[in-house]
Amino acid sequence: MSEKPFLRALRGTVSKAPPVWLMRQAGRYLPEYRALRAKARDFLSFCLTPELAAEATLQPIRRFGFDAAILFADILIVPHALGQQVGFREGEGPVLGALGNLQPAEAQRRVAPVWETVRRVAPALPKEVALIGFAGAPWTVATYMVEGGSSRDFARVKQQAFAKPAEFAVLIDAIIEATVTYLSGQVEAGAEALQLFDSWAGVLPETEFRRWVIEPTRRIVEAVKTRYPGVPIIGFPRGAGLLYEAYALESGVDAVSLDPAVPLVWARDRLQTRMPVQGNLDPMLLVVGGEAMEQAVRRIREELGRGPLVFNLGHGILPETPPEHVAALVELVRR
Amino acid sequence: MSEKPFLRALRGTVSKAPPVWLMRQAGRYLPEYRALRAKARDFLSFCLTPELAAEATLQPIRRFGFDAAILFADILIVPHALGQQVGFREGEGPVLGALGNLQPAEAQRRVAPVWETVRRVAPALPKEVALIGFAGAPWTVATYMVEGGSSRDFARVKQQAFAKPAEFAVLIDAIIEATVTYLSGQVEAGAEALQLFDSWAGVLPETEFRRWVIEPTRRIVEAVKTRYPGVPIIGFPRGAGLLYEAYALESGVDAVSLDPAVPLVWARDRLQTRMPVQGNLDPMLLVVGGEAMEQAVRRIREELGRGPLVFNLGHGILPETPPEHVAALVELVRR
Repeated sequence: MSEKPFLRALRGTVSKAPPVWLMRQAGRYLPEYRALRAKARDFLSFCLTPELAAEATLQPIRRFGFDAAILFADILIVPHALGQQVGFREGEGPVLGALGNLQPAEAQRRVAPVWETVRRVAPALPKEVALIGFAGAPWTVATYMVEGGSSRDFARVKQQAFAKPAEFAVLIDAIIEATVTYLSGQVEAGAEALQLFDSWAGVLPETEFRRWVIEPTRRIVEAVKTRYPGVPIIGFPRGAGLLYEAYALESGVDAVSLDPAVPLVWARDRLQTRMPVQGNLDPMLLVVGGEAMEQAVRRIREELGRGPLVFNLGHGILPETPPEHVAALVELVRR
Repeated sequence: MSEKPFLRALRGTVSKAPPVWLMRQAGRYLPEYRALRAKARDFLSFCLTPELAAEATLQPIRRFGFDAAILFADILIVPHALGQQVGFREGEGPVLGALGNLQPAEAQRRVAPVWETVRRVAPALPKEVALIGFAGAPWTVATYMVEGGSSRDFARVKQQAFAKPAEFAVLIDAIIEATVTYLSGQVEAGAEALQLFDSWAGVLPETEFRRWVIEPTRRIVEAVKTRYPGVPIIGFPRGAGLLYEAYALESGVDAVSLDPAVPLVWARDRLQTRMPVQGNLDPMLLVVGGEAMEQAVRRIREELGRGPLVFNLGHGILPETPPEHVAALVELVRR
């Protein structure tokens, strides 16, 4: 198992060419994904139908031969698990129902189809390819649960976190518990590494960042690693900026995923000396392709390639990305 | 002139209580502003009618006694000056017309009403209150000009900056030139300090940040300071994160405005040792008020109060802010 290049990198091994996978590698930029997506009634059913979700997970592996597959699911599976209504409107993003009483007792039953997806994917992967499970981190999941969807200013969730921290902590605790259950089941089903996505980590001042980003992450990492000490966990505090270092050192994660704004030399000196890093090509450079992309890839490899690195984007693939640019990227990274 | 507390702080003087003003202190959270706004046909006419814009500038000074007034205008005055159509839809934000041939020759005539606003405000201010002029920084202005309005992913402007940098540089150069003209006229009309707002500085990787955020800012600062060496310039690279330090040291600005995510101890040790800082209360804490706000204000004063500081928010006042919280904040900062 530890022979897979992706897992080797997460244990600190430096190789000539870094392993590569891309966030949202299973997605709308692929025609075969769009065809598959058309078979499901809505996005949530798509995620919760193991046959379809397993196929979506495998599609980019077949096409590009990435070093890791990431479970096809969504960070809003946890709100769904807790009994909140979760919908997705085409082109608009998620729409969540009113945040009523949480139903943690239902969580296992509600996430079981995702575990089944992992169970189907694991044996279907080429032997060099690792399988990554994931969940949203509590702060980010809470933003959707409180705002009822995407947000520009995070007014409601910030007001709650700032003005009623004790009440907000109850929600965060429920998310932590459901997330530990959810991730543990993914490991039991065959996930070999985990990633926590904290997409909105960047909108909090330091005090609140420590309380609502670092501390909940630390608790999840601790709980999961107590049960599965061998499973590496990657943290992705997108937009954390000057708080990236505190997150990396204090949350307990094994590796940290860098957004495109993290300067490479800084990451090399301050983070990569302590743990493997993952990242961080700007997804728009993958859309653009050509010389601009090549230069940026060379720079990442030059600055971060002499330490443990998983090559990735700094954020998810954009729907307008030409698949041939992805193929060119993989070739470039492996060259 | 150098006796005004705000200007003293920008020259590096530390005082017992820092001077205070708030970004977007003239705005929708004030009933008197909403009444005034109703007199103009649309937001652009509001900005370009000196009688109304001067009154909007003065309202928060009368109500709260801030240490500085900031010219009431909009960062999209420069696209307007260059001949692009600029509109504002209620609740939706700005809508810009197609980006055709720029008309730099028209710029002076088109921004003249803003200069007239400054000319009216300057003599109307209490003698201790300074007058700040401002403009958007080129990268942020370019995002609106290329995207045609607000954006979530900055797809078009990033594609242009990444894929066609030479073409994009032509646009940036035109913005720089118009901005230098615009700011110089503000100083001639009575502005005693200037602020450059780079609201979207945080979305670029380091290489592009240096090219499209730091370098254009440096050129504006250099040009303005050559003409008006005594006028301090505050730079606000919102969201710059790990690139805040490079911006502060390399752009030539006299002081740097901090967004809410900048950690205080870091700012004290790495920035305030080199220049005055401004900030950085989270605007949502001003909405929330009470103990949460008081704690955060105390923390800012404790960490940054022993060096040169202008107290401010980390971003503009939100429309839902209760004006009595603003009064409480000013009292708290001066206590």
